[in-house]
Amino acid sequence: MTNDNRPLILITNDDGITAPGIRSLVDAVKDLGQVVVVAPDKPQSGMGHAITIGEPLRLHKSDIFQNVEAWECSGTPADCVKLARDKILHRKADLCLSGINHGANHSINIIYSGTMSAAMEAAIEGIPSAGLSLLDFRHEADFTLAKEVARTVAQRMLANPMPAHTLLNVNIPKLPRELYRGIKICRQAYAKWNEEFEHRTDPRGKDYYWMTGKFLNMDDRDDTDVKALEEGYTSVVPVKIDFTDNEMKTILENNWQ
Amino acid sequence: MTNDNRPLILITNDDGITAPGIRSLVDAVKDLGQVVVVAPDKPQSGMGHAITIGEPLRLHKSDIFQNVEAWECSGTPADCVKLARDKILHRKADLCLSGINHGANHSINIIYSGTMSAAMEAAIEGIPSAGLSLLDFRHEADFTLAKEVARTVAQRMLANPMPAHTLLNVNIPKLPRELYRGIKICRQAYAKWNEEFEHRTDPRGKDYYWMTGKFLNMDDRDDTDVKALEEGYTSVVPVKIDFTDNEMKTILENNWQ
Repeated sequence: MTNDNRPLILITNDDGITAPGIRSLVDAVKDLGQVVVVAPDKPQSGMGHAITIGEPLRLHKSDIFQNVEAWECSGTPADCVKLARDKILHRKADLCLSGINHGANHSINIIYSGTMSAAMEAAIEGIPSAGLSLLDFRHEADFTLAKEVARTVAQRMLANPMPAHTLLNVNIPKLPRELYRGIKICRQAYAKWNEEFEHRTDPRGKDYYWMTGKFLNMDDRDDTDVKALEEGYTSVVPVKIDFTDNEMKTILENNWQ
Repeated sequence: MTNDNRPLILITNDDGITAPGIRSLVDAVKDLGQVVVVAPDKPQSGMGHAITIGEPLRLHKSDIFQNVEAWECSGTPADCVKLARDKILHRKADLCLSGINHGANHSINIIYSGTMSAAMEAAIEGIPSAGLSLLDFRHEADFTLAKEVARTVAQRMLANPMPAHTLLNVNIPKLPRELYRGIKICRQAYAKWNEEFEHRTDPRGKDYYWMTGKFLNMDDRDDTDVKALEEGYTSVVPVKIDFTDNEMKTILENNWQ
């Protein structure tokens, strides 16, 4: 990679390098800095924070984006960020953007999300980062509004120096422009998926199961991401990577030690 | 599954159903309740919180454990917990134990860990759970001490009714018994992996990369899991599944809205 003096923006995703969502993201921010794309060579949705340890990784240059350096990687979204840092960028990126995901990553979805795991990996590396997701999982989703939001988020993150481990979970509603109400800072809603597995029998008579599920929001607080999205806002949840439950820590210190 | 009146204990792992670690865990707790094992049919280390959405899942009964109902599943650790709930248990488990993992899952490793993702999935379902890991990644690791710890943790969790979403990250040091100092309640240490990728060329002249890495503890606080383990304790970190960074939320509310 040849360096120029503009901010270095690493872009990745979990839908794979050919997804319309990442093309929209590159389009939205390519004039804000020197953009380098390192993205999975195939879809990696639902990969959570998986990393590849049992097999080697491949990395190939791609000419899929005009005038933007791009690489496709055989690994997971988290692998892409790790490989980018070690083998491609040769300096610390100023910003990492992951997405734009085809489908929501609000509330509990953050832990299943490859999009967010790439952003988390960047934050662990000390690169301010944001995962961006549009509440429309279709390949042909309309990314017009999402592109504007991505650009605004990137501009704000570049303009105000963010703490090194800043990490934002940005979800954009699927709305016509006239119903859209702007950006809202939120907390992660307490929610879950109620999975059911559909039982089928294959042509050889063997059982198999497809995961299906219903999303359950169990959080009626005013400042959650789910609520903001329902009200027509883009939700922005600042995320930290410390899982410690401090309240329970105090309880256990009193009862267990 | 036929129910009896004892506490229902779901056991899973990420090293796969044939790993010595899960056999040790079953041995350690099988008389504390009705144990049901639902574990991956192959190793799933580093799978993070991956779930299987693009392909069907298989579930087969296994007779690998004597007098303990067991199933092997083609999916990830998180899939195992979801499938167990929907297709096998038919009532809510009283406790979920994941492990005993061959290798550490303290500090930042929690986000890469299939062991912990299974425990998290159970906690999301409202089942008190613990992920257990021994700081010895070898197949032939000695699980004697780890079994004792697992039994103690399970007994305490069953004896004191835990809040529904309680989730513990338990790491056991690799130590001879005379140097072992007991259980300590801790916080997650701020740490990271400094990955480097070793470049090689395959027999057809194509490049590939192996992930290698050095663990960096950047946290000198007294109550971290890394420190407790160094001092000869088992570390127990209570975990919550809310990633919201409340401090940054306040900052952004003031600057962004």
